Amino acid sequence: MATVHLTLDEIHSLTVACLTTSGCDDENAAAVARTITAAERDGAVSHGLFRLPGYVASLRSGKVNGAARPREEWLTPAALRLDGDRGFAPLAIEVGTPLVAEAARNHGVGVLLIRNSFHFAALWPEVEALAAEGMVGLACTVHTPMVAPFGASRAFFSTNPIAFAYPRPGGDPYVFDMATAARARGDIGVAARDGHELPPGVGLDADGNPTTDAAKIHDGGVILPFGGYKGSAIATMIELLAAGLVGDNFSYEAAAIDNRDGGPAIGGEFVLALSPDVLAGPGWAEHSEAFLTELGALDGVRLPGDRRRAARRTAGPRGVDADLVAELRSVAAG
Amino acid sequence: MATVHLTLDEIHSLTVACLTTSGCDDENAAAVARTITAAERDGAVSHGLFRLPGYVASLRSGKVNGAARPREEWLTPAALRLDGDRGFAPLAIEVGTPLVAEAARNHGVGVLLIRNSFHFAALWPEVEALAAEGMVGLACTVHTPMVAPFGASRAFFSTNPIAFAYPRPGGDPYVFDMATAARARGDIGVAARDGHELPPGVGLDADGNPTTDAAKIHDGGVILPFGGYKGSAIATMIELLAAGLVGDNFSYEAAAIDNRDGGPAIGGEFVLALSPDVLAGPGWAEHSEAFLTELGALDGVRLPGDRRRAARRTAGPRGVDADLVAELRSVAAG
Repeated sequence: MATVHLTLDEIHSLTVACLTTSGCDDENAAAVARTITAAERDGAVSHGLFRLPGYVASLRSGKVNGAARPREEWLTPAALRLDGDRGFAPLAIEVGTPLVAEAARNHGVGVLLIRNSFHFAALWPEVEALAAEGMVGLACTVHTPMVAPFGASRAFFSTNPIAFAYPRPGGDPYVFDMATAARARGDIGVAARDGHELPPGVGLDADGNPTTDAAKIHDGGVILPFGGYKGSAIATMIELLAAGLVGDNFSYEAAAIDNRDGGPAIGGEFVLALSPDVLAGPGWAEHSEAFLTELGALDGVRLPGDRRRAARRTAGPRGVDADLVAELRSVAAG
Repeated sequence: MATVHLTLDEIHSLTVACLTTSGCDDENAAAVARTITAAERDGAVSHGLFRLPGYVASLRSGKVNGAARPREEWLTPAALRLDGDRGFAPLAIEVGTPLVAEAARNHGVGVLLIRNSFHFAALWPEVEALAAEGMVGLACTVHTPMVAPFGASRAFFSTNPIAFAYPRPGGDPYVFDMATAARARGDIGVAARDGHELPPGVGLDADGNPTTDAAKIHDGGVILPFGGYKGSAIATMIELLAAGLVGDNFSYEAAAIDNRDGGPAIGGEFVLALSPDVLAGPGWAEHSEAFLTELGALDGVRLPGDRRRAARRTAGPRGVDADLVAELRSVAAG
């Protein structure tokens, strides 16, 4: 793959140009661009510019409102519902996270329920934003079915990601952000192409039988949840929180109304903020730091997010697929 | 195994008698007895009378305060800290769950942080109690290390259970309650005894190498988290919520101070209650019901907790290990 190198400013500007040329206003374009740039900065390329053609497609198809303004509705002083106005999620998230952090500061806990929004990014930006405000953050969302519940042989769950951040004052928070699918669809495609075997439990073939043959999972088969029935239970919880409790689409409902333009599906997101200052009280940071230090020092243990943050600290331009950049420059030119 | 049959009333009375004879007051004994009886009622025998010798041992050793009275401290109107007064957890849970449900009714969300308490039961009683109040419930706790974090080869996490309940008005809630260990220690012991192989990913041998030989895991080896690095991340989150955020012992801290009398270790529990009436608003029950019905109707899918609730609906006495009953009757006789 040929790559070209772009600075983070260039990545941001290119994203803004592609989105505004396609019908997005400045405010929404800037929020999406911050999210995409953060992903490229962190080396999380599958959520970087790679996603931009999908964002553009959903503006062009008219599915997404490029001039969305999230509408706040405080259900209680600790619970904020945010209607995304059929826009991309990043603006709603940027509006909502400081508000829910403030709610948690005042009440120990705050809940943010985002509805009517198109999420097409990682979840670590929102939980890291909460951790930067001193809060424990948890977020989950659903999109469209591609994972079979444990025991079943057809897709019903989306990859149902969940992210969690725990602040470490003076340093980077503990953060994980993971799909509850056993593998990303992209990873299975790569393994299929390269003829690699996958471990048991990753997927089923087209007849619903367990297989370790990546090609059989990829072509007509289905992905399984991570960790068997236990991971399937976590995936169910995510549907119930991000759709049932938020009051937006379950994965199977989102699929039924999506126009399949290659962009995101409309849906909800559940975000929880908890204040350790309020809940645990003095000394919590040292107490938790000792645990995380001990855990990280165990032979063979790598804390999640370390690689991403190492990439973040790298100065200089980022390598991006040259064909993708050429395509995006053409979009940006209008 | 010879069994004798006891009615649920007899199970309750036997439990109360064993505990009061061993130094427990009536109020604490009754709360533990309700928990143990509920487990026997549901066929969850590993949390039934089987646990009673451990409860008794911890009273006799003086580790647990049999006359504990949980002390309430409202940190905010949505966050209740409950000091367990070094007692068994059931009384604190019975005191705390209606209060946190009421907080969620008023504020959309409520947090219950139990400290200084000895938890030796399943977690479904507390989340089912929340669901009975119309709340979504989530609970997690830690005890002492027996699970190696992903990548490591020595025990650092406890089995770190997590339970979740989602109410289904007019029916039983959706409930799961699971250890984040790949297998219960007892199950590995049984497989070792019977010479059964275990799937990859369940444990390591004494040298820290992956093995499917149950005996090698059981004798000097270590259990792994379910679901590889993803399950390990969930287990980490549980330590951070139930210990870091609650302000009580991490698993490795609990082990350092426990007297190893065979009973539970002192620690904390994190409980979250969310009100779908407040947060999702009208229509949430039908919306979620359609999802759960669709999920449960998929070929091959069994919703967690179904077996337990089928046992619950069975009338009549429960079969209990005769040797255990003989031992407990001797304890009860004083």
